[in-house]
Amino acid sequence: MREVNIMVGGILELVPLDQLRTRANQIWIGVDYGATFLLDHGITPQVALGDFDSTPAPLLQRLEERGISLTTFPPEKDYTDTQLGVKRAFLDYQPDWVNIYGATGGRLDQLLSNLYFPLLEEFQPYLDRLRLIDRQNEVTYYWPGEYTIEKLPEMKYLAFVNLTPVKGLTLPDEKYRLTNFDAEVPISWSSNEFVGEVNHFSFQDGVVAVIQSRDWGAR
Amino acid sequence: MREVNIMVGGILELVPLDQLRTRANQIWIGVDYGATFLLDHGITPQVALGDFDSTPAPLLQRLEERGISLTTFPPEKDYTDTQLGVKRAFLDYQPDWVNIYGATGGRLDQLLSNLYFPLLEEFQPYLDRLRLIDRQNEVTYYWPGEYTIEKLPEMKYLAFVNLTPVKGLTLPDEKYRLTNFDAEVPISWSSNEFVGEVNHFSFQDGVVAVIQSRDWGAR
Repeated sequence: MREVNIMVGGILELVPLDQLRTRANQIWIGVDYGATFLLDHGITPQVALGDFDSTPAPLLQRLEERGISLTTFPPEKDYTDTQLGVKRAFLDYQPDWVNIYGATGGRLDQLLSNLYFPLLEEFQPYLDRLRLIDRQNEVTYYWPGEYTIEKLPEMKYLAFVNLTPVKGLTLPDEKYRLTNFDAEVPISWSSNEFVGEVNHFSFQDGVVAVIQSRDWGAR
Repeated sequence: MREVNIMVGGILELVPLDQLRTRANQIWIGVDYGATFLLDHGITPQVALGDFDSTPAPLLQRLEERGISLTTFPPEKDYTDTQLGVKRAFLDYQPDWVNIYGATGGRLDQLLSNLYFPLLEEFQPYLDRLRLIDRQNEVTYYWPGEYTIEKLPEMKYLAFVNLTPVKGLTLPDEKYRLTNFDAEVPISWSSNEFVGEVNHFSFQDGVVAVIQSRDWGAR
């Protein structure tokens, strides 16, 4: 199982540092200030990219001295920072999973851009191999089908969010159940919980995000 | 113009305290710990409601002693805390605008629930009179039509987010323009900016959220 990790230069206080340590030997891509953040935490990314307009010159030099492959984009570009990282991850490494850190918190327009971009035609081929991760949340994406999901030990809550219109959403064995639900608008079925360590869900049309989460300060 | 404000007991560090001071003499509704937070900041809410399971007994007593109308709900209820506050605001006060504080940050399932609930049939009549506000963001909602929007002096960025499929989204005079754009999936057109103090937009079908935002630490 090949995992590639992307550190975006967002709200870095929300990054779970324990996961960085666990994944230190995996492949890392640093976007903008995210590359410097990785070096500061003992991880040398294979690739650094971005406009680097928030990275001071000495820090940029440090990236170069470490032999990191550096790609610079103009500040006004066709892709967001997160999208640039994801394109690079899939084109260079053929990963089974791409974990995205630093993409949540703060400005809601950026957060929603990071939540929604897998729905764009260009990124749809990657949709079910992407995870957004911060200290309180892990988001995964699903095409129509029947699924078994496993509880993350550190998380308490489980949520199903139809990011698009959905048909037949069924939660058969969670704490709060749902049978064959159709919705024309997005709904966040929040604050559900696993019953046991493994639960199931299914739907026939649309895209559903699953969010496992916990309260701030938990654990 | 009658404005009613709701303080939800979310991530209260994100609440813009300067706005609380400005709105101190308006009507306030405190939900759960939000009611205590208001008292702590010199505002006596007209109404307090919630399950209050995160409010210690002495603080609950303080609310009662201030003569605040207190309504208690069981922890497992049919509405979220935010929805309870919004229902109460519209049923009791016939407001022109309802400003919601404390509803962002932290758990993404709760944030999305707070972002999406105006799309539910029961809340659609209120959709274009709701605002979600935190230190970095102000979100408003629009039905199809042609609109003039004003720049909030404290915000830098402007974003258009079709929360549902959209037809004909046109941004004629913003920094980054868009003409007659159709989308089947939600897209966050983030990091746009006003040109001048007033700009326009229009669309023919769907629901669009407008987000004005700024970086953390700005101003």
